Amino acid sequence: MRLVKKFGGTSVATIERIRRVAAICLGSREQGHEVVVVVSAMAGETNRLLELATQVHQGAIDREVDVIVATGEQVTAGLLALAIRQAGGDAQSFLGHQVKIRTDSAHACARIESIDAGPLTDCLAARRIAVIAGFQGIDSTGSITTLGRGGSDTTGVAIAAAIAADCCEIYTDVEGVFTADPNVVPNARQIEQISFEEMLELASLGAKVLQLRAVEFGMNHGVPIHVRSSFTDRPGTWVNTEDPDMEQPVVSGVTVVVDEAKITVRDVPDVAGVAWKLFSPLSDGGIIVDMIIQNISAGGTVDMTFTVARSDCERAVALLTKQCSELTGAGKNITADSGIAKVSIVGVGMRSHSGVAKKMFELLAGESINIQMISTSEIKISVVVDEKYAELALRTLHDGFIV
Amino acid sequence: MRLVKKFGGTSVATIERIRRVAAICLGSREQGHEVVVVVSAMAGETNRLLELATQVHQGAIDREVDVIVATGEQVTAGLLALAIRQAGGDAQSFLGHQVKIRTDSAHACARIESIDAGPLTDCLAARRIAVIAGFQGIDSTGSITTLGRGGSDTTGVAIAAAIAADCCEIYTDVEGVFTADPNVVPNARQIEQISFEEMLELASLGAKVLQLRAVEFGMNHGVPIHVRSSFTDRPGTWVNTEDPDMEQPVVSGVTVVVDEAKITVRDVPDVAGVAWKLFSPLSDGGIIVDMIIQNISAGGTVDMTFTVARSDCERAVALLTKQCSELTGAGKNITADSGIAKVSIVGVGMRSHSGVAKKMFELLAGESINIQMISTSEIKISVVVDEKYAELALRTLHDGFIV
Repeated sequence: MRLVKKFGGTSVATIERIRRVAAICLGSREQGHEVVVVVSAMAGETNRLLELATQVHQGAIDREVDVIVATGEQVTAGLLALAIRQAGGDAQSFLGHQVKIRTDSAHACARIESIDAGPLTDCLAARRIAVIAGFQGIDSTGSITTLGRGGSDTTGVAIAAAIAADCCEIYTDVEGVFTADPNVVPNARQIEQISFEEMLELASLGAKVLQLRAVEFGMNHGVPIHVRSSFTDRPGTWVNTEDPDMEQPVVSGVTVVVDEAKITVRDVPDVAGVAWKLFSPLSDGGIIVDMIIQNISAGGTVDMTFTVARSDCERAVALLTKQCSELTGAGKNITADSGIAKVSIVGVGMRSHSGVAKKMFELLAGESINIQMISTSEIKISVVVDEKYAELALRTLHDGFIV
Repeated sequence: MRLVKKFGGTSVATIERIRRVAAICLGSREQGHEVVVVVSAMAGETNRLLELATQVHQGAIDREVDVIVATGEQVTAGLLALAIRQAGGDAQSFLGHQVKIRTDSAHACARIESIDAGPLTDCLAARRIAVIAGFQGIDSTGSITTLGRGGSDTTGVAIAAAIAADCCEIYTDVEGVFTADPNVVPNARQIEQISFEEMLELASLGAKVLQLRAVEFGMNHGVPIHVRSSFTDRPGTWVNTEDPDMEQPVVSGVTVVVDEAKITVRDVPDVAGVAWKLFSPLSDGGIIVDMIIQNISAGGTVDMTFTVARSDCERAVALLTKQCSELTGAGKNITADSGIAKVSIVGVGMRSHSGVAKKMFELLAGESINIQMISTSEIKISVVVDEKYAELALRTLHDGFIV
């Protein structure tokens, strides 16, 4: 098999762990597999480099910051190649400009556009392990770019797609994807297999185990992803295309996020274009709006409620207050509530099962948890509740749907 | 003017010093000069990175070690570009693969073969300061190479040659080149101007202020080098082609090195080919032999005395012992002495002055310092003396020739 293995920062945090990673790679090689490795910076290194950059130029997000932080992965790539050779194997490191991981020029959050598989397949043909610095690429001018936090996951899956690997193994410090956060739900269990669609929802709803864009990339290019621990040999969680012949669980996972805030604008005139005018300044200010609910209200006006990242809440209220005072007749009654939690259930089985929402509401009602907002997609139901019920809601839904 | 400024590790050791370097560069820019900067790694960083590499693979000197250590200069280049922008200027960093500093593939001691001046002159045309990561290049396969300790000096002079700069300023932690090491000779004084030839001799005889290959590069390409302090505005030492109209001092500088050892092989048969056979194993072992003296001895045999780096002495004796036992009739009497110092006087004025050697020997005799070996070149006389006289010899020659 042709395998891409991606190791995160905690898996390469020390020289000892880098040796362990070298042993894992050599083990695969000795089983006859072709091995390409993608590495992150040693844990803490990216923050150290960003801190240096911040000391000379506060708030800079640009070309030069990428030049600085990209060195973290470069060092790990060199070290792992040396460690593999020290252990008796053969390896060569590759940087973004050497594999030609071409990206756009959006520094600190660049997107991969193309990859030159040639140098990698040549390396594999020479029966050598290829070690790639994750998280980075080059743009059309040859400048170094970085893909944003967790970008090495995306590098791994993109490389796997480019060289037609059989799968991309994401080695991390947990054993796989769980039905809920085991720190909150003690009886949460590891998921053996999950579809790309479900993983996408889970990743965007707070499951930090796999980067959202990596899942998208895997889905779009049909690259199976195996999320597993770098500290045990046990199989982890396979993320793959849905198997239509297999019955799917109604709910695969339950998540909660507590980093959002709820904003309500009352008495907005019920005329065309008002929503656009209301949300324009938020969009212009780079604030991402998540759930949006519009209630019909009396007297030709409506109430608009939506959620934003908690860190954006204060700025969003200021922008809205300014905008509302400019909208003739617009309500000035803006309230914000940071004490909320978004609890979600995710599962492709929902498509073919009715009554899932009803059961969810029933379970929450059974614990007297009031639902403030509801949002649904084909394979997901999210509700906003008071933050103090976050953990109770998560455990209740997990017990009701999964265990 | 078009200026290349090179800053060493101590000049960029802290964020505060990087800000100071940014101010120096902007000051030159504001005087209307075009400015290209070459930077080393922050002091201590190269050693930290080498230590990491050594922990995973002892004794590795290769491609992957270069991948690791090259990140030191990369970080400084990004930081300085940010610092210049923070101070109100405009700057862009360049790495070895972006300026196409093409080298051979001798990792850890690569030699520059060519430089693509295009990206730099474009940058200057945009009235921007170019910041180049020193010490590194790429070979014909696109692998990162490094130029060896002090290689950033060479990068600076090579860049200056490639873009036809008016001069290369080497900023360091001393104020210039001195007539002797001021730590040993208190009345040593800074040299205002010195020829490439003299600087070459001084650099190869232990003056650490400027890297030997940088001086060679400057001489071969006619790039004036200005060695100066990054902590004061005072002019330093100009290294330039000799001005034939100017009378030159007989002796420009006095140096001492104490890192060599003397080896004597007695009773070597006085026949053709013996010297070759004797030195072959040393050459094959990568041991560099410095001064060589052959004395005629009685009975058809000669004594051969030469110096090697002190760190190579033990290995050289072992190789010679093995070789002598294979040479029929070769003497087995091999002695080594690590307690020696090589004291030298350097000056282009020697060419047109007689009696310089006589005066040197007279000065040393006046202090009862015995001379063990002598070696001369057109502009240099070196003598080997007992190490305990090293400082006395240096001060005596400095007082006799220079002050």
